[in-house]
Amino acid sequence: MASTVETIGYRDGAVVLIDQRKLPQEETYVHCRDHREVADAIRDMVVRGAPAIGVTAAFGMALAARETGLIDAGPWIDHLESAAKELGETRPTAVNLFWAIGRCLDHARNRLSEGRSSGEVSESLLTLAHEMHAEDVAMCRRIGDNGAELIPLDAHVLTHCNAGALATAGYGTAAGVIRSAHAQSKIAGVWVDETRPFLQGARLTAWELHRDDIPVTLISDNMAGYCMRTGRVDCVVVGSDRIARNGDVANKIGTYTVAVLARENGVPFYVAAPTSTIDFSLASGDDIPIEERKPEEVTHIGGLRVAPEGIDVFNPAFDVTPAKFVDAIITEKGVVQPSQGETPEIWMSEG
Amino acid sequence: MASTVETIGYRDGAVVLIDQRKLPQEETYVHCRDHREVADAIRDMVVRGAPAIGVTAAFGMALAARETGLIDAGPWIDHLESAAKELGETRPTAVNLFWAIGRCLDHARNRLSEGRSSGEVSESLLTLAHEMHAEDVAMCRRIGDNGAELIPLDAHVLTHCNAGALATAGYGTAAGVIRSAHAQSKIAGVWVDETRPFLQGARLTAWELHRDDIPVTLISDNMAGYCMRTGRVDCVVVGSDRIARNGDVANKIGTYTVAVLARENGVPFYVAAPTSTIDFSLASGDDIPIEERKPEEVTHIGGLRVAPEGIDVFNPAFDVTPAKFVDAIITEKGVVQPSQGETPEIWMSEG
Repeated sequence: MASTVETIGYRDGAVVLIDQRKLPQEETYVHCRDHREVADAIRDMVVRGAPAIGVTAAFGMALAARETGLIDAGPWIDHLESAAKELGETRPTAVNLFWAIGRCLDHARNRLSEGRSSGEVSESLLTLAHEMHAEDVAMCRRIGDNGAELIPLDAHVLTHCNAGALATAGYGTAAGVIRSAHAQSKIAGVWVDETRPFLQGARLTAWELHRDDIPVTLISDNMAGYCMRTGRVDCVVVGSDRIARNGDVANKIGTYTVAVLARENGVPFYVAAPTSTIDFSLASGDDIPIEERKPEEVTHIGGLRVAPEGIDVFNPAFDVTPAKFVDAIITEKGVVQPSQGETPEIWMSEG
Repeated sequence: MASTVETIGYRDGAVVLIDQRKLPQEETYVHCRDHREVADAIRDMVVRGAPAIGVTAAFGMALAARETGLIDAGPWIDHLESAAKELGETRPTAVNLFWAIGRCLDHARNRLSEGRSSGEVSESLLTLAHEMHAEDVAMCRRIGDNGAELIPLDAHVLTHCNAGALATAGYGTAAGVIRSAHAQSKIAGVWVDETRPFLQGARLTAWELHRDDIPVTLISDNMAGYCMRTGRVDCVVVGSDRIARNGDVANKIGTYTVAVLARENGVPFYVAAPTSTIDFSLASGDDIPIEERKPEEVTHIGGLRVAPEGIDVFNPAFDVTPAKFVDAIITEKGVVQPSQGETPEIWMSEG
């Protein structure tokens, strides 16, 4: 069953985003009327999740193409390139962002060089964004179906952060695997890590799976090890923000910890992501930039200070899980097993 | 330098406890005037930390001895035994609680059998509680000094939960090791896990170490793995609520995860606790009861709901770290190395 959440929409010349900072208490929407408002929404985490920010950025490029009064191809593409730069600087870790922006820019340059007018290319950029939105949902469904084959009957699956409908244009990557497995009646329960500091698990994953009648049990991040050691977890499925050529996986902070615990306890650890998440330019995960976010995300929860004044805080938003801990990377094109020496390089020529 | 926090005091016939639920925002004190109020304070986590609840329970026994109008030895000791039962039922995991209560009961029975009056024994129970308070501080200092020998120069130490002055009658166990090492100018910095769901790290450890001018950096629990993998942690020191004969260690939920991550990254993992934490009746940690607490600790933070309504929650308060991951248990009597096959059994005859 597909989720009924609409993460990203386009209506009346605006990109419409469900405000993920306010879920689950409030279901409100932010309307972005130009590319700067889209960049702000990505930076401020109105929208988050690697595939979702990719699609959002594509709509941001479509807005950039339309918002300018420029008509001549030269100044028009200059404006588009400057918007691409702004959108690309919002979040450093997820590669889907750069992939989506690059695809839009290439499209625009190619159409211009074919002799189309800037007005025509503006229209086709909007069509492209809509296509990327639809592609993302279709890709999630293929990822879900490919991943569901790995899920045993009566499975207790653990997931970290939100790689759900809210992290994509719909259906989700890790949550897509869970949704497909649930449609096959394989899911006994889902352990959801709350995922401090931003609480994407507690606020978003628990919310969207519960909405789809999938049984969820919320835990603090530091309870995952106990659940595994006491035999309560059959497999782990998470998403990814960037995957290196060798199968090293960057994902939300805490993913590495879950992977190490899974290996220690003989629990398979799976990563679900579209191939657009694979950065074939990187030989290993060591080169993936790790975003550090502001201290207040750790010292405050919902505006409430929980830590004393005057102390230092470290707030890395992502970590890298070495390929040896990754039992499968599940993409729309199939599955590779990095822990068995297979790598995403098999998809490189098709990249 | 010793901490200036007074965790547990006795004034004007009342046990006075700093309210640890309200730190660091408010420094307020709860006055318990009979043993039931002491039991409530332990159950509600006004006071927490294995050594601290042991000493608090000893004062609770002294109050129980004084609060009753009974004078005859038989009914008086019956009342004391019933108070012991109530106090013992407040928290199931920490063994220091049962150790302290048992010591008070034994003391009372022995004195009565020597022919002392209930009034005299009431007085000596209060003296015993004061002695146990002083002993605990002295023990923490010995633990601290024994542990400091294991800390290298310029050490970045990671700790989980609060095994500090607030978890003891003063100085702390794990924090005692950090304080002693800091007095020897060995501490470059302390990584403090925030320790969801109750946030003892963020609220208590960060507060009491910062107050003593020890440099702390707060992280979410799920960042400890990243810190270790990137070479930012030289050793881990935590406390314990109960240690089995073989060296298995029960401590705050998440400790097992830290231990597994430490081993994976070649970081020594140390446990600091008084020998009263060792339960020589248990062959292994499998028999340690793990307290489960209410869902609201996970779904709410500071009264604010962060998770959707209607979902399940699992909230185990402790976990067990197998002895093989424990590089040293540091007590007031010295150090054993469970990961090298040594066990706390060497202290059994002296128990």
